[in-house]
Amino acid sequence: MHIIRPLLLILFFGVASTCLFAQTIQWQEIYPGVWKGLVGKPDDYDLLKAADTGPSVALNKLAKADFPLNKADITAQFDHGKTYLRLPLQANEQLFGFGLNFQTVHQRGKILHLHTDHYGKSDNGRTHAPVPFYVSSLGYGVFVNSAKYIDVYAGSNVRKDSKNPPKVMDRNTDKNWDAHPYSDAVEMLIPAEGIEIYVFAGPKPLNAIQRFNLLSGGGCLPPRWGLGFTQRVHRLYTSEQVKQEAKAFEEKGFPLDFIGLEPGWQSKSYPCTFEWDKSRFPDPAGFVKQMDAMGVKINLWTNPYVSPDAGIYKKILPYTGSHTVWNGVVPDLSMPEARKILFDQFEKEHVKIGVGGYKIDEVDGFDSYLWPDVATFPSGHTSEQIRQTYGLLVQKHSYEMFRRNNSRTYGLVRASNAGGASFPYVIYNDNYSHEDFITALINSGYAGVLWTPEVRASKTAEEWLRRFQTVCFSPMAMINAWSSGMQPWTFPEVAPQIKAIAELRMQMMPYWYSEFAKYHYEGTPPFRGMSLEEGFGNAVKKEVTSVNHQENPYEEAVTREVKDQYMAGEYLLVAPLFTGQTSRKVVLPKGKWYDFYTGKLAGDGEVITVSPGLDIIPVFVKDGGIIPMMPPMLHAPKAGQKVNLEIRHYGTSNGSYKLYDDDGTTFDYEKGNFAWREIKVERQKNGALQGSISKEETGKPNTVGTVTWRYMTK
Amino acid sequence: MHIIRPLLLILFFGVASTCLFAQTIQWQEIYPGVWKGLVGKPDDYDLLKAADTGPSVALNKLAKADFPLNKADITAQFDHGKTYLRLPLQANEQLFGFGLNFQTVHQRGKILHLHTDHYGKSDNGRTHAPVPFYVSSLGYGVFVNSAKYIDVYAGSNVRKDSKNPPKVMDRNTDKNWDAHPYSDAVEMLIPAEGIEIYVFAGPKPLNAIQRFNLLSGGGCLPPRWGLGFTQRVHRLYTSEQVKQEAKAFEEKGFPLDFIGLEPGWQSKSYPCTFEWDKSRFPDPAGFVKQMDAMGVKINLWTNPYVSPDAGIYKKILPYTGSHTVWNGVVPDLSMPEARKILFDQFEKEHVKIGVGGYKIDEVDGFDSYLWPDVATFPSGHTSEQIRQTYGLLVQKHSYEMFRRNNSRTYGLVRASNAGGASFPYVIYNDNYSHEDFITALINSGYAGVLWTPEVRASKTAEEWLRRFQTVCFSPMAMINAWSSGMQPWTFPEVAPQIKAIAELRMQMMPYWYSEFAKYHYEGTPPFRGMSLEEGFGNAVKKEVTSVNHQENPYEEAVTREVKDQYMAGEYLLVAPLFTGQTSRKVVLPKGKWYDFYTGKLAGDGEVITVSPGLDIIPVFVKDGGIIPMMPPMLHAPKAGQKVNLEIRHYGTSNGSYKLYDDDGTTFDYEKGNFAWREIKVERQKNGALQGSISKEETGKPNTVGTVTWRYMTK
Repeated sequence: MHIIRPLLLILFFGVASTCLFAQTIQWQEIYPGVWKGLVGKPDDYDLLKAADTGPSVALNKLAKADFPLNKADITAQFDHGKTYLRLPLQANEQLFGFGLNFQTVHQRGKILHLHTDHYGKSDNGRTHAPVPFYVSSLGYGVFVNSAKYIDVYAGSNVRKDSKNPPKVMDRNTDKNWDAHPYSDAVEMLIPAEGIEIYVFAGPKPLNAIQRFNLLSGGGCLPPRWGLGFTQRVHRLYTSEQVKQEAKAFEEKGFPLDFIGLEPGWQSKSYPCTFEWDKSRFPDPAGFVKQMDAMGVKINLWTNPYVSPDAGIYKKILPYTGSHTVWNGVVPDLSMPEARKILFDQFEKEHVKIGVGGYKIDEVDGFDSYLWPDVATFPSGHTSEQIRQTYGLLVQKHSYEMFRRNNSRTYGLVRASNAGGASFPYVIYNDNYSHEDFITALINSGYAGVLWTPEVRASKTAEEWLRRFQTVCFSPMAMINAWSSGMQPWTFPEVAPQIKAIAELRMQMMPYWYSEFAKYHYEGTPPFRGMSLEEGFGNAVKKEVTSVNHQENPYEEAVTREVKDQYMAGEYLLVAPLFTGQTSRKVVLPKGKWYDFYTGKLAGDGEVITVSPGLDIIPVFVKDGGIIPMMPPMLHAPKAGQKVNLEIRHYGTSNGSYKLYDDDGTTFDYEKGNFAWREIKVERQKNGALQGSISKEETGKPNTVGTVTWRYMTK
Repeated sequence: MHIIRPLLLILFFGVASTCLFAQTIQWQEIYPGVWKGLVGKPDDYDLLKAADTGPSVALNKLAKADFPLNKADITAQFDHGKTYLRLPLQANEQLFGFGLNFQTVHQRGKILHLHTDHYGKSDNGRTHAPVPFYVSSLGYGVFVNSAKYIDVYAGSNVRKDSKNPPKVMDRNTDKNWDAHPYSDAVEMLIPAEGIEIYVFAGPKPLNAIQRFNLLSGGGCLPPRWGLGFTQRVHRLYTSEQVKQEAKAFEEKGFPLDFIGLEPGWQSKSYPCTFEWDKSRFPDPAGFVKQMDAMGVKINLWTNPYVSPDAGIYKKILPYTGSHTVWNGVVPDLSMPEARKILFDQFEKEHVKIGVGGYKIDEVDGFDSYLWPDVATFPSGHTSEQIRQTYGLLVQKHSYEMFRRNNSRTYGLVRASNAGGASFPYVIYNDNYSHEDFITALINSGYAGVLWTPEVRASKTAEEWLRRFQTVCFSPMAMINAWSSGMQPWTFPEVAPQIKAIAELRMQMMPYWYSEFAKYHYEGTPPFRGMSLEEGFGNAVKKEVTSVNHQENPYEEAVTREVKDQYMAGEYLLVAPLFTGQTSRKVVLPKGKWYDFYTGKLAGDGEVITVSPGLDIIPVFVKDGGIIPMMPPMLHAPKAGQKVNLEIRHYGTSNGSYKLYDDDGTTFDYEKGNFAWREIKVERQKNGALQGSISKEETGKPNTVGTVTWRYMTK
């Protein structure tokens, strides 16, 4: 038995648990409004080191700001090799973030165990991107740069020494008794003997997110073709069948920018060889070239687990972990040797012949497939660290391969983490709940990642169309038909509507592309939650449920969770309908909002109900909103190709828009080869609205052809 | 970035990951067939230290046995402060145990994170009793004595250096491709710099379990009254209402041995004062005495979280954790001072006036209620260690309180762990799935704990009766009506059948009591899974699903999971029906089995289908089985009270039975004041069966009145 002398204990631990192990966090303002805190000895391997992107130059140009919290209220203690972190919470504060959640947007009160994994139908911290970053409704952000599994208590538990303790009640007799008393702190347990923590100033929550994204280089900038339409074909398709699929799109007039090949392109898969199957693809280089000539890029499915039959097997073996995944060895991608062997193979076999990107599968979970936590890796990094960073590592080093070839990529990945914002990969999974997919799209914007609510199959034409509508208002407009074999026109009764929304996706490409440029250069997520929209916090008075704010002072902050509508770019509010719905409520932030299709006023700071019919996905535009659009082309414009613009203006207020331009395919923008054009719509003295666009800069890219103006609101 | 020189890495880690940190386990045979292995520096606080029971003297009398595994195949490595443990698996081996699981009995292939918690509808290791013990179908057991959260990979993942590697296949083309390739090892990750591990010999799996239970003192021995019927009343009942409830049982002729009071007996609860509410219970001592006179003991609900309004609050405050639970402070029960203050209060206020036991609630989970893992405790034990052992601590120290008063107790608890077998507490929860409850009853027998499939409420008479039937074949026959207010006769249409099965429970008390005595003295779980029954492994040939044993050599061991029937004591096989079922399959092990009610032959090593009607819970008796029964009394016999026995014999073979006797209420049995009587039924030369019972021992307890013999099988 553990024999302890009580008196000694009081003397020792009474002090120890509150002071002795408490450590001072050393804060340093590393950019305007960005502070790095250091305490103890953090692990020498962390998320930012795995991502290895470096910060965006834009960080230096940010406005000065005060530290957004009371530094004394942020405390760290060490105990048994772990760091106990505590941050303050106000009563009127809501929290967002903590990774790619699928069912909840509001995170206050949650307990999360941040752990890279597939999403298992519960927002418990196990997710494809368990990003240890949160943003407060009060306008600041916090990021713990650790590649460990972190326990987060986001205002869920009450300390004995709380400065704002909840009222003690008797459950037997007091009807206001609450199973979850008010807590005034976020607490985290990080299994490391020190941590590196970042605090980001606002003043608005969106500003804190921008700073977080810029810290890892800003958001990604896809090639223009990445924002077009993509189809994934059956896993055993041959090169001929893939060509036929692309031809069918062209003949039927459906847009298509890239096609994804599933495991059958490889000679063996699960585990993988990364080598072409010559029976199905006898001439890979010729095939990719022919597809390119049709305006269609090739994306390749793979996972990183190396088959004993792979040419690189023997070479990579010393740089792999102790355990196998589907009998494939697991490259320790935190080691330069391992990634060189793997991605040299990718580069030689795929990228050099023109492959445009990858779908990197199964780098997230499930536990029963992936390496276990008892696995060891030759780098000496723990299984946990490799698990938390594997998504970053595959993105980083495949991305670098494309960068070396000065050819942009845009692909799919199943895992990411903090630090990965600048990697041009979109997360997906197998959950296939349309509702959850929209909530994930919202949460991606708080987490520095991208998410696609992909379309796979549908039981009905209605579901097919409803899913298709949202995927066209997402980072990647994709049908993933590797199993279903479905095509946009599979349901003839909605094929015209499918074509119309796919064309709309293409028409909006100047808008999408510019919004991604803002993600890259300014850190603003192109798809994001309503809480980041000004005027949203006070908008929903009509919907507030009955609460007793005296008894539950923080109830105010935890009501009004909206998880089925989102912002798409600067001006658009998207409120999708799900199968079975014929109408829905839409929460419009303060300020006037207009119908995207008609330009008519929809409402102002209120909850409206819309019944748009099956053909329409409700989209609303902020007063003064400007949307640049191009003709409905079947493929994205090629480098330098000029396109005519129809620039739409909504509402009655003046508006402005920054239109981005570059070659759309290379990394030359990193050398300054890009341009911003200023679009303005202003009311003239005669009362009419008048649009203008700034002149093109000499020596800079310009793809704008003729411009026509359309004032949508009459 | 983490800069590593590849060549150095190979030299260093190539060795390091396989040899450098590998440690030799020091094995010591501490009892016949029980080995303790030590490696590294285990934590100074563990499960056995928390339980602090000491081993049973029976361990020394066990048969000698060889170490059941190849010692060289059990390996431990250290890395980053954690211990990586590996044990071998054979292809034809199945695993059982790893705590109180609710949906699965077979554990091979599972990944579990052993963590005390409520059961959250998934067998993932989070459960009320996350016992780090498993038993193999090959007849040995393994126990890791750690109070940490342990990651278990029970033959789920494949090492690169596996001696029996699975075949590599191509998923594209090979139909036998398996998402879960064959694994030849159990692996565990224990977050400690060393471990204490125990290996138990068989030769049968049941023997390994016996050894495990005996290591912590053997199973509990409840008072006789604990095996009678119990009702829990509405949380705000007054002492008068409780008396009326007991009277109603008596008047209607329903057995009743103890009544449970819910939170309203306390002046305040959630958090608790542990003091009587004088408005509802003006004279607690008088009330308990009156109830006792009616033959009904009192059980008190509580949780251990101390209200600021409790008399002991200020005194216990220095010995409580950093965080509160429902605004109550959390006693650090690993400290002698904390438990003395808490249980002195219990003893003074409850035990001294005759209270018979407790229902100790909410010592398991949920995370959002309990102290978080960032909590610290004055003992210096981590939150994790306190969480893993809190159930043991409340049991141990409440039990010791009753022991000091030489009065046995039998109660309810929501959490336990390895080491707790000898504590007279039954686990329960809120899940209320009848099917899961039966699977938990099965798994309790592999985990050294007890479980009750309690009855709370029912929508229909059928459900009420079906649930009632199983609770009468469980460690605690209880209606928990604190919320529903239901009574055994609530559904008049099945009230006679309810009474009949409650009476059967009472009639069988000599059997139940003797079976618990075997739990205590021999370590044999009274309720347990079919896999522990000889002849079961080969029984189900007719039900084997189509598998390719050449491709999946271990499929053989993972089929045939039976989780809806169980063994109750030495001779009975119970196969309950669930609501909606009118018939069910029953898997009878090899050997003849007889119907409990009729004595007729039911089958032999086969799958039978029974359609018993609503009134009957199918129960089968092994050939030669002997069941001692007493009259259907309303209360358990008092100390020294003689009861007449009807001794039943089933089948055609000779049989024997060990009948246990003691005073049924005190701890005098620990001083040797108990007796075993040998019952035999043997076939005489004339072909007739003849029963006999050994003579009573002088100076030993004897409660056997007249004996009648009933040979059930004609």
